[in-house]
Amino acid sequence: MQRIFDSFARQSMMTTLGASLAEVASGHVVIEAPILETSQQQHGYGHAALTFAIGDSAAGYASLTMMEEGFEVLTAEMKVNLLAPAAQGPLRAVGRVIKPGRRLIVAQADVFDGDTQIAVLQGTMVPVKVS
Amino acid sequence: MQRIFDSFARQSMMTTLGASLAEVASGHVVIEAPILETSQQQHGYGHAALTFAIGDSAAGYASLTMMEEGFEVLTAEMKVNLLAPAAQGPLRAVGRVIKPGRRLIVAQADVFDGDTQIAVLQGTMVPVKVS
Amino acid sequence: MQRIFDSFARQSMMTTLGASLAEVASGHVVIEAPILETSQQQHGYGHAALTFAIGDSAAGYASLTMMEEGFEVLTAEMKVNLLAPAAQGPLRAVGRVIKPGRRLIVAQADVFDGDTQIAVLQGTMVPVKVS
Amino acid sequence: MQRIFDSFARQSMMTTLGASLAEVASGHVVIEAPILETSQQQHGYGHAALTFAIGDSAAGYASLTMMEEGFEVLTAEMKVNLLAPAAQGPLRAVGRVIKPGRRLIVAQADVFDGDTQIAVLQGTMVPVKVS
Repeated sequence: MQRIFDSFARQSMMTTLGASLAEVASGHVVIEAPILETSQQQHGYGHAALTFAIGDSAAGYASLTMMEEGFEVLTAEMKVNLLAPAAQGPLRAVGRVIKPGRRLIVAQADVFDGDTQIAVLQGTMVPVKVS
Repeated sequence: MQRIFDSFARQSMMTTLGASLAEVASGHVVIEAPILETSQQQHGYGHAALTFAIGDSAAGYASLTMMEEGFEVLTAEMKVNLLAPAAQGPLRAVGRVIKPGRRLIVAQADVFDGDTQIAVLQGTMVPVKVS
Repeated sequence: MQRIFDSFARQSMMTTLGASLAEVASGHVVIEAPILETSQQQHGYGHAALTFAIGDSAAGYASLTMMEEGFEVLTAEMKVNLLAPAAQGPLRAVGRVIKPGRRLIVAQADVFDGDTQIAVLQGTMVPVKVS
Repeated sequence: MQRIFDSFARQSMMTTLGASLAEVASGHVVIEAPILETSQQQHGYGHAALTFAIGDSAAGYASLTMMEEGFEVLTAEMKVNLLAPAAQGPLRAVGRVIKPGRRLIVAQADVFDGDTQIAVLQGTMVPVKVS
């Protein structure tokens, strides 16, 4: 699973958001992030883009755990339903693979703020061969 | 339209991403952002969360232009289809209202990297009364 | 839960598709449907609209179980990811409420063809007062 | 464009819904359907599955017009935002291709009931080689 950590470390956006990989297992990835002063919307809550960023990445890296070496995954599409404000932090995004595949992978993620679920995401990843 | 600029200025996430309001008209908002070194994914392209952030915000602020004073809007749900990598920047998100409403507003956004369309977004905003 | 059965019985589309309510509990509804000769796409598989119809309805009626009397729910938006063809039937859609609410309800559904999961749906319902 | 008409004619679901192909051009397909007594929800409006069916099919066939011979397209995912009830009919779904591609096609559709737009759809099609 070292390649998951390597790829994550190269995403400067994750560093900007203060996000970290908390769990990596086959088809299951957890990403955590605080609500930094630099990640907020107009009322001081965590920005929807923060919730999207860690939910999408958790779904994407969960998908990558199921790909053979030499591939990466890209998000083709992702939908987020926001359930509650990101009020406290740290946020915790739990990604899982619903349907693995060679052409398309369908994945979901749940995002929590403490015990409160604040978002559900559902989307499609595409494998891309890397040289 | 001053309240749009005021609200935008209070979103620290927009500052973090280097985003700015380029156009504000009734039902139409354009947001621009460069691909900062701090906004990238693992290959140096703009992160999907950057594209989402400006597309979602363009759709949201386009919705806010059509609300009476004393209301804000929150994203209830948003879906993004990514069409091409965010390679050069600056990115340009064009938001528009499809269906205004007192309970729900449906809005879309197109995101461009130069002449290349890199994303389409479609989602639902909810008005929230502010004190 | 009688109102769920009454409402379902008035949906002529459900009759057209041969669909039936298999389980109704708080926040949980299961709808089953065969793949009729009149519900197919060009290769004889069940049409995506059949899968959507029972998935969306299972999510909607699961939401209705959590509303007080005098309300109905309407689908505001729904997204379906199709995972596998609807090949055999009967199909089985399992709907559940993720987040109840007075203004918006977020619900999901899984659709199965035998043991194979063929779709996941995620969407938003809005309560509507009925006279 | 004969193959579009041939494929459409083989979809028994389209016959069941009374749907017909009204326009077929490169990247553009229009499908019309009445609100049959057999296509309704509990209040006599057109069922959301009817709106989905013709919107998804218009987007799919618009995509097929841009594929070379020997391919079909399948819906990988589709999202619909419902804007207004399907009250009168006939309904008219206008599908268009946003981004063609060999692996994925992104398409949208607008659905109208007379002059009223009742839905927007956005989704992903995948080409499938047929023998």
